[in-house]
Amino acid sequence: MSNQTLYNVAVVGATGAVGEQIIKLLDQRNFPIKELKLLSSARSAGKKVVFQGREITIEEAKPESFDGVNVALFSAGGDITKQLASHAIERGVVCIDNTSAYRMDPNTPLVVPEVNAEKIKEHKGMIANPNCSTTQMVVALKPLMDRYGLKRVIVSTYQAVSGAGASAITEMIRQTKAVLADEPVNPDVLPVGGLPVKHQIAFNAIPQIDKFTDNGYTFEEMKMVNETKKILGDESIDVTATCVRIPVVYGHSESVYVELEQDFDLKEVTELLANSPGITVVDDPANQQYPLATDSAGKPDVFVGRLRRDLGHTRGLNMWIVSDNLLKGAAWNAVQIAEQVIKGV
Amino acid sequence: MSNQTLYNVAVVGATGAVGEQIIKLLDQRNFPIKELKLLSSARSAGKKVVFQGREITIEEAKPESFDGVNVALFSAGGDITKQLASHAIERGVVCIDNTSAYRMDPNTPLVVPEVNAEKIKEHKGMIANPNCSTTQMVVALKPLMDRYGLKRVIVSTYQAVSGAGASAITEMIRQTKAVLADEPVNPDVLPVGGLPVKHQIAFNAIPQIDKFTDNGYTFEEMKMVNETKKILGDESIDVTATCVRIPVVYGHSESVYVELEQDFDLKEVTELLANSPGITVVDDPANQQYPLATDSAGKPDVFVGRLRRDLGHTRGLNMWIVSDNLLKGAAWNAVQIAEQVIKGV
Repeated sequence: MSNQTLYNVAVVGATGAVGEQIIKLLDQRNFPIKELKLLSSARSAGKKVVFQGREITIEEAKPESFDGVNVALFSAGGDITKQLASHAIERGVVCIDNTSAYRMDPNTPLVVPEVNAEKIKEHKGMIANPNCSTTQMVVALKPLMDRYGLKRVIVSTYQAVSGAGASAITEMIRQTKAVLADEPVNPDVLPVGGLPVKHQIAFNAIPQIDKFTDNGYTFEEMKMVNETKKILGDESIDVTATCVRIPVVYGHSESVYVELEQDFDLKEVTELLANSPGITVVDDPANQQYPLATDSAGKPDVFVGRLRRDLGHTRGLNMWIVSDNLLKGAAWNAVQIAEQVIKGV
Repeated sequence: MSNQTLYNVAVVGATGAVGEQIIKLLDQRNFPIKELKLLSSARSAGKKVVFQGREITIEEAKPESFDGVNVALFSAGGDITKQLASHAIERGVVCIDNTSAYRMDPNTPLVVPEVNAEKIKEHKGMIANPNCSTTQMVVALKPLMDRYGLKRVIVSTYQAVSGAGASAITEMIRQTKAVLADEPVNPDVLPVGGLPVKHQIAFNAIPQIDKFTDNGYTFEEMKMVNETKKILGDESIDVTATCVRIPVVYGHSESVYVELEQDFDLKEVTELLANSPGITVVDDPANQQYPLATDSAGKPDVFVGRLRRDLGHTRGLNMWIVSDNLLKGAAWNAVQIAEQVIKGV
């Protein structure tokens, strides 16, 4: 494949929050598209979307939908990926999946292009896009790991409700209005659809994202542990995570503590991060400048600030990492992978 | 002093959010009061408050206001404490101060009764009440320290706007309504009154509480570092903190990682904390039960949950600690100290 070629691209889950961002990015990036297929569940099929001046009708995703497709971007839930991806792979499609279905599969590269783009060429038809919280964190960890070595990571997240889908945004707004009107909140969506207990997200912080695993950590927390090790290619890095949903619409924030293998100079760390791909350093305490979720919304970058040395441990470093969870955390990372795929990396 | 005696009690900052809670608690606890003096700035003087069926007129706080007073509870800002406390102490008053004015003074005990009540008797007229974030954390750390030894603490906070005063609550509600109405937010109060730059708190997370110190940490973060060591009586414990304001009205949440000196059994840790004073353990992942800010509001306890072992470090423990910042974090801790003072500890 070369840069001049045009490709047949499919977006599976075209009507979801991430799917919509993918379509927008394919347009903005002038992705070399011959035909764009927009696929969804039967429920959304028939809707029309305008892409680069052409009207595209959304079709129900079926195995034969992938005939002739070169690259497919999946963001329709793990079950849909599991049902359809093998049919697409059989047809020679390169699949890029936003769900957790294939992430920990040893035959599937788990890719953040700024970190491990070279893994893309090892794919056997499937490339996995990491969990949103993991993606933004590893972008900042990679340059530190390469320069100083990375011993351990202790992260606490402040995650936006958009990560739980459009219904969670609607729910938060509904609850917020209820609280302001002094009416009952009646939680109905968060923390996890399908689980019996619901909690208030308006003016609250919920320390549960995704279901609990048997070890007391949530799946979201275990994703941060396992995916970080896989992407950084080092099982010896200790990672522990606490994942928390807060009443923010777009933009995950993370308080990340790292212990490096070697001592560091804080100014050098700041310069290193500022010169690393995909990162914008916002770190000016004198002028009260640091990354903020509201500032990150709609932007592709990973924003890093509040850089400071642990006063008790010379190799300890605190950081505040913020990024738009629907962009670098999902759609933008997927489109970056697609761009690398057609470049042949 | 004995339990039968009645005391003359003064509340300085009677019209503030914490002052109001102190007055309510003195009533609820049937504190043995002979005369209650409510003191404030000249601006609020003349207002009337009903206490146990009697109407009390708020007076302007002056040095002579403390004549005949036994115990004074200050929560009117550090400058007011600095101006007035020495006059009160001269008059034999035992002062309990909610501000940071005396906390790190080596001659002033810094007290959380569940942790170091025995320090109260060393007072020289002044007893300091710790920072809200510190108080709730040390209540949970103390039993762990006594049983296993405490090596280091890495904490990230999720702090309620009520910690920045009533004007911050009003501001958050105003901003929230503006966002919902798609109108300009025009931040005006947070993160810090008196500093030039203001940030949006509605649907956001602000990684700045209090001003920045020269080392890149905020004063709030350094309070957590220094006050924790002082209250636990061990300068060798490493503490590092990231303090963040989130859109919650009442209740600070904290993601606390501790490294203990000795290995532990998780079930034993849970039982130890459940049987420790001032703590309610809420930790039932199977039923999605964990501490929540909204549940903590109006309650005196420190709620602890999400207890789990760091999978990479046998001596590492993650916890989620939540408490009402105006109660255990301020008014309730102060009233507990006052109760100990009149008991003669």
